[in-house]
Amino acid sequence: MISRILKLSEIKKGKHVDAFLIGSASSVKYFSGYFFYFEYGSSPFHLLPAILMVVPDQDVALILADNEMGQSSYIDPIITVILYESYTYEKPPNPAGECLKKICAFIEKNKLGSSRIGMEPGSIPFLIAQKLDELYPSIEWVDISADITRLKSVKDSDEIEYIRQAAGLADIGQEAVLKYAREGMTELELFALVHRDMEAATGFRVPLMSDLSSGTGTNSGGGMPTNKIIQSGDLVLSDFQPCLQGYWGDSCNTMVVGAARAGQKKIFIRVKEALEIGIQAIKPGVRASEIDYLMRKYIGDYPHHSGHSVGTAYHEGPRITPYNETELEPGMVIALEPAIYKEDYGVRLEHLMLVTANGSELLTQFKHRFEQ
Amino acid sequence: MISRILKLSEIKKGKHVDAFLIGSASSVKYFSGYFFYFEYGSSPFHLLPAILMVVPDQDVALILADNEMGQSSYIDPIITVILYESYTYEKPPNPAGECLKKICAFIEKNKLGSSRIGMEPGSIPFLIAQKLDELYPSIEWVDISADITRLKSVKDSDEIEYIRQAAGLADIGQEAVLKYAREGMTELELFALVHRDMEAATGFRVPLMSDLSSGTGTNSGGGMPTNKIIQSGDLVLSDFQPCLQGYWGDSCNTMVVGAARAGQKKIFIRVKEALEIGIQAIKPGVRASEIDYLMRKYIGDYPHHSGHSVGTAYHEGPRITPYNETELEPGMVIALEPAIYKEDYGVRLEHLMLVTANGSELLTQFKHRFEQ
Repeated sequence: MISRILKLSEIKKGKHVDAFLIGSASSVKYFSGYFFYFEYGSSPFHLLPAILMVVPDQDVALILADNEMGQSSYIDPIITVILYESYTYEKPPNPAGECLKKICAFIEKNKLGSSRIGMEPGSIPFLIAQKLDELYPSIEWVDISADITRLKSVKDSDEIEYIRQAAGLADIGQEAVLKYAREGMTELELFALVHRDMEAATGFRVPLMSDLSSGTGTNSGGGMPTNKIIQSGDLVLSDFQPCLQGYWGDSCNTMVVGAARAGQKKIFIRVKEALEIGIQAIKPGVRASEIDYLMRKYIGDYPHHSGHSVGTAYHEGPRITPYNETELEPGMVIALEPAIYKEDYGVRLEHLMLVTANGSELLTQFKHRFEQ
Repeated sequence: MISRILKLSEIKKGKHVDAFLIGSASSVKYFSGYFFYFEYGSSPFHLLPAILMVVPDQDVALILADNEMGQSSYIDPIITVILYESYTYEKPPNPAGECLKKICAFIEKNKLGSSRIGMEPGSIPFLIAQKLDELYPSIEWVDISADITRLKSVKDSDEIEYIRQAAGLADIGQEAVLKYAREGMTELELFALVHRDMEAATGFRVPLMSDLSSGTGTNSGGGMPTNKIIQSGDLVLSDFQPCLQGYWGDSCNTMVVGAARAGQKKIFIRVKEALEIGIQAIKPGVRASEIDYLMRKYIGDYPHHSGHSVGTAYHEGPRITPYNETELEPGMVIALEPAIYKEDYGVRLEHLMLVTANGSELLTQFKHRFEQ
C-alpha cells in the first residue's frame, strides 16, 4: 500500500508549515484511508468524525470518535489511532471537549504551541481554531486547501484500484436498469432494485448519488427518483455515483422502455459518438478544454460540464470545462458525460477513464445500450 | 405554521446578542424549515448548504447554495432567501467566496460590524469566522449552542406532526420486516424491501439510519445490514430511524423467522413489559432518570441509554439515562428502547411517544410482534 501521508512533506516545504490538522472527510480518507460513513448526516456524538494530525517525519495521529470505529476501512498502519469518548449514557456526553483534549495533547507532545499549522479552513469547525488560539496564541494557521486539491488530481495506483471497484458498482447499476426497467414500475421501485444489486455485490450499505428519471424528466438531465410511473416509450436516464468505502465511481446511460420515438435512437447514437470522440482525445498533454470543445462541437452545447474527476469526493479536478487549461497527466481519472437535451427528453452517456501513458483505459466496463 | 425564528428573541435577551449566524444543518432546519438532503455527504459546491442569519425584529436571511434549491422543503415565509453561486462550469467555481460575500453583505446592510453574534462554534467553518474577524475585528462571537439545545427539547405542534409522519415511516418499515423476512434472504435484501416501502410512501428518497441484524448479530444490539443469510430460527432486530425532510422517526422491533428457541418468546414478552412500564411512567414532572430506572429494574441492565428524543437530529435531549434529572414536559418527544442481550441473541423494542398534559401518546403506531 502507498502512504499518502508522505506527500505532506512536499506541502510542508512549499508552505513552510510544521504540522497539519486535516478535518475534511475527503482529505482524511485521502491521507489516512479512514472512511466515515456519511449517509446518516452529522452525528450528535462527535465534533468531527476524524481529525488527522501530522508532523512530517515525526508523528501521525488519527483522532477518532470511539463510536465510529466500527465503520472504518483500511487505515494506513503508520498512523496512531487516538480514540476520544463520543457516545456514553452514564454521564452527559462531551464529544467536542474530549476531541479538543486529544488535539491539545498532540500539540503539547509535539511542541507545536508556536508552530505554523496547515489546514483546510472550510472544513475545520470554528470551535477548534478558537480553542487553540486561546491556548496557543502563537500558532499560525496556513490554508493548504489548494495544495491538497492539486495532490488529489493525480491518483496513486491503489486509488485507481479503489475507483475501479467503485466504477464496477456503477456498471452493476447500469446492468440492473437494463434488466429490471418495466412499464408500470415507479422510478423509486427501479432504484431500489439497482441499489440492492450494488449492495449485494459489496455486502454492506453503499452511499449512492443518483439521477434516475424517466420520460420528460430526462429533458433537464435527470433528478432523484420519484413515484413517477415508467410508461412504455419513456427514456430512462440513469446516472450512478456509488461511494465504495470513500472512493466514488461514476457512469450514466439512457435507455428506452418499450418502443422509442422516431429520432431518439439517432440522438443516442450521436451522444455515444461524442463520448467516443472525447475518449479518443484523452491522452497526456491534452488540455481539459480541448476535450470539452471536441464533444460540444460534435453534438452542440449542453448546460453543464463535459466531465470531471472523482476520487474521495464525487467531483474533483481536473474539470472538463471550456475554461480549464489543465493538461492531462497519466494517473488522472476522468468521467466524460456529453448530452443532448430536447424539449421533452434527454440523453446523457458517461464513462469513467484513467489517463494512461499513451491514451486512456476504461474504468467503467459497461457497454452503453439503448434497448433492453 | 409556527415561526421558530421568533424564539431567537429569547436568546437575544438572555445572551445579550444582536444577531445570529446559524450553520448546523439541524438548527437551520429547526429555525427555517430548510432541509439539506445529506445522503451524498458534503458537496464540493458549497461552503455550508445553508446559513441562517437573523437580526430579531429586523432582518432574516437564508444564504443558500443555488444548486441546493431543488431539495428544499417548506421555508418559513418571513425569510428572505439569498442564493449564492455554487455550481458553475463556465468559470472556476468559488462557492466559499460567493457565500462569504453574501454573509458580509448581510452584516453591512444590518450594521453588525461591531455587534455580538450568536452562533454554534462546533458547526461554523473556521473560514467564516476568520474572514469576518479580518473584516470586522470588533465582532464578538457568543456560543449559543446550549440555548438552542434547550429550545429544541420541547416541540411545537407542527414539529410533532412532522415527527408523527416520520414515525409513520418507521411503522411501515416494521410491517415490511414482518411481511418480507424469509429464511434464505440476506439482511441487505430485506433492507432493500423495507427501504423501498418507505420511499413508496413518500415518493422521494428517504435517508434511513438502521440496525438490521439477524441471528447472533442481534446479541450486541444490531448493526447495519450485511450479506448474512437469514436462517430459520434467527431473530431479526430492526431499528429504523427514517428522516422525513429533516425530522426523524424511530422504532425498533425484534421478531423470529421460523420457530423460536425455548425462552426467546419469554424474553420478548419481558422486554415488551419493560417498554410498557416505561410508557406508563411517562408524564409531565417525572424525571428522565426515573423512567430509565424503572425499565432497568424490571429487565436488568443494558449497555446503552433507555431512550432519547428525536427532532431535527436523530438523538436529542432529554436523554433517558441514569444521570439525567430533567423533568419531562408536555411537548417533549421520547423514544424508549429497553433491551435484553443474551450471549447469542438479543431483543430490543422501541416506541416513540409524545409527552402530553396527563401522560403520553404513541407517535409510532406499530404493534410489536414476535411472530410473522
